[in-house]
Amino acid sequence: MLQVPRLIERKRDGEELTPEEWRALIHAYVAGEVPDYQMAALAMAVVFQGLGDAELVALTDAMLQSGDRLDLGDWPAPRVDKHSIGGVGDKTSLLLAPMLACCGVAVPMISGRGLGHTGGTLDKLEAIPGFRTGLSLAEARAQLERLGVVMLGQTPELVPADKKLYALRDVTGTVESIPLISASIMSKKLAESLTGLVLDIKTGSGAFIREPAQSLLLARTMIRLGEASGCRTVALLTAMDRPLGIACGNALEVAEALEGLRGSGPSDLMEVTYALGVEMLLVAGLARERGEARRPLEATVRSGAALGRFAQLIGAQGGDPRVVDDPGRLPVAPVVETVAAARAGRVARVEPRRIGQAIVELGGGRNRASDPVDPAVGFRVLVKPGQLVAQGEPLAEIHARRPGQIAAARAALEAAISLDGEGPTLPLISHRVTRDGVEPLV
Amino acid sequence: MLQVPRLIERKRDGEELTPEEWRALIHAYVAGEVPDYQMAALAMAVVFQGLGDAELVALTDAMLQSGDRLDLGDWPAPRVDKHSIGGVGDKTSLLLAPMLACCGVAVPMISGRGLGHTGGTLDKLEAIPGFRTGLSLAEARAQLERLGVVMLGQTPELVPADKKLYALRDVTGTVESIPLISASIMSKKLAESLTGLVLDIKTGSGAFIREPAQSLLLARTMIRLGEASGCRTVALLTAMDRPLGIACGNALEVAEALEGLRGSGPSDLMEVTYALGVEMLLVAGLARERGEARRPLEATVRSGAALGRFAQLIGAQGGDPRVVDDPGRLPVAPVVETVAAARAGRVARVEPRRIGQAIVELGGGRNRASDPVDPAVGFRVLVKPGQLVAQGEPLAEIHARRPGQIAAARAALEAAISLDGEGPTLPLISHRVTRDGVEPLV
Repeated sequence: MLQVPRLIERKRDGEELTPEEWRALIHAYVAGEVPDYQMAALAMAVVFQGLGDAELVALTDAMLQSGDRLDLGDWPAPRVDKHSIGGVGDKTSLLLAPMLACCGVAVPMISGRGLGHTGGTLDKLEAIPGFRTGLSLAEARAQLERLGVVMLGQTPELVPADKKLYALRDVTGTVESIPLISASIMSKKLAESLTGLVLDIKTGSGAFIREPAQSLLLARTMIRLGEASGCRTVALLTAMDRPLGIACGNALEVAEALEGLRGSGPSDLMEVTYALGVEMLLVAGLARERGEARRPLEATVRSGAALGRFAQLIGAQGGDPRVVDDPGRLPVAPVVETVAAARAGRVARVEPRRIGQAIVELGGGRNRASDPVDPAVGFRVLVKPGQLVAQGEPLAEIHARRPGQIAAARAALEAAISLDGEGPTLPLISHRVTRDGVEPLV
Repeated sequence: MLQVPRLIERKRDGEELTPEEWRALIHAYVAGEVPDYQMAALAMAVVFQGLGDAELVALTDAMLQSGDRLDLGDWPAPRVDKHSIGGVGDKTSLLLAPMLACCGVAVPMISGRGLGHTGGTLDKLEAIPGFRTGLSLAEARAQLERLGVVMLGQTPELVPADKKLYALRDVTGTVESIPLISASIMSKKLAESLTGLVLDIKTGSGAFIREPAQSLLLARTMIRLGEASGCRTVALLTAMDRPLGIACGNALEVAEALEGLRGSGPSDLMEVTYALGVEMLLVAGLARERGEARRPLEATVRSGAALGRFAQLIGAQGGDPRVVDDPGRLPVAPVVETVAAARAGRVARVEPRRIGQAIVELGGGRNRASDPVDPAVGFRVLVKPGQLVAQGEPLAEIHARRPGQIAAARAALEAAISLDGEGPTLPLISHRVTRDGVEPLV
């Protein structure tokens, strides 16, 4: 019989629970035998006291064991996913999934929805008319074998412990915990039966975790968990003190991803996409060094193969593959307005958190998991920190559903984009983290 | 609309919530609008981050406002209670209530049950055949006006917020928090409409709070809360590194309290009783200095008035008042066995926590609030730390329900009473704490 109050007290007092205790706790929680109020108190104690290595591995494994996996049996192909810790304007998944599939990597990508100021891959995909992300594990397996790539949402049978625990953490102030974030993400990624995983750890003011030291800690924690399960795991730390690319908003980001797959995406987006793709090929064992790995990725773009694979993916999942050649088929916002610079100056900051919140206010994101999302709305932010602008030069476009939304969106943009001189910005890709340590890239 | 997750996050991050936020939270919690899991996470955040002065006053007041009070209107008599923070062998309430009533102080004493290793006044009173502690507030008020003293349990209409919150804290590892303990106790005491309150803060290994510095902090916190509500509040820090008196167990303690009221109680029990009684007379305004205050208390014992008042109290609450002259009418354990010293030595420790746990194992205490209690069982611990004992000299008596309980009880006693030389013991009464500060008494 599990003495839960005693376990909570021990964690509260800084002791480690045993792996068996964590397994029993998670098992009993999913079975409804441990009530939410005890798990909430325990989660808050973990926020303050952290978890030891053995605890973290046991918690992650117990969550993983709580449900089914995307079982790929003895399939010989390397299976690699990329996971990003929440950003604004980050559409790299839409580029990487078809690019890597063209290189012979199987990409079973199980993604999430946007929440708060950050976007989510599922919402972006669902901006494509007809696109279905609610596949069963059997459907996903079949498509992966046929097409080498599948992009879906979490299914009910996958890591139910995380689903229950995350919903609880979301309403009890216990989301911000590196061990709990790590266990949540890694239990879901390991359920994909991956041989390799590349993490895109966002840092800076628009990231969930804003301090670079904490971002590094998160990266190392997740890498430890991946490697402990035999999944080669590598992380890049990338800048989220400004949006990635130009488009911010679901359909706008799909359109920009299509530009990227045609070779004409914004340079920061392409740089991060290639850097992550290189790491994916490396952990897949399909390349031995970085210089060598970039060429085949570029070839998938130059040849049109990646774009073609994306069209196949869209078609296979019920979407309209014609968007690939005709992005006008994506949902379009009826009200588009350009915001111009009130005066000349140098762009100091483009605050992604403020932009992301403004997307939510436009209806393009959500404050609660149950909120519906308007795929058409958002922003195209045309300037980057450090850039000189003339008076009257366009800073951004607002894509809105109704004219009445423009004033607030304009105010949000004016708060987000400051022209007060040149502020310090983070390097686009600052660190590479592997099981062997941290490698600064600048 | 209360954004509870945001409030939890702010408390987690070390911010203070406003008094209005605390009031709204408690109101919504009692109304069932804030779920237990959010309150549990918040309580754990308070365990780590504490509460500011204004937060603590607001929380206590919100809990007090959640129910009725023992409303005594414009009654002119001073109304004083004594509250102890959990001990083993502590039967001072049974002596003080009638003694103070004889001195013209109204004593509306709302007590609790034993939990874990500590005893509770209600369980002791209910060891008296027929004694009824479940009075309504109206009955309590009427008896207080008639007899000057009433001893009852918490009623459903009194501080329901504390009832709900305490039950939650009890199962979520959030009991050990000085601000939460203080708010819980003081909201209930202030609901008695007191003009004065004397706190007996136990310190040492058998106390809930073992560190003297923490005990002092608890005392000062509760005094601040009492004085903020116009209730003169004073605390004594007393030793709980050994049991108080000889008898430990409900009926055994009633018998010892009766001895005390006849003037022949154990000296440590009488010392603490008089010291607390003196403070009660002082906060009542019925004495101006300590030397002057002790004499009238001693007179209530010498004259038999206190014993007589106790008999009246018992009779008024449905009990058999003849126990006062014939303690043999109290429940008697069928199996009594003496444990003798295996060798000569000096008593180093008599560990109250171990003794208290052994009472629970005998059936005389409870691990859960719903456990029934056997009033007859317990121990009489005949030795004190520092005392020299000869081989074969009785150390303690076991009072058990069944012979099969003796072996475990003997083992517990042997673990509790160590003869390994002279250990340091705490002074019986070490500090007096008032709104003006801390006064060492040794």
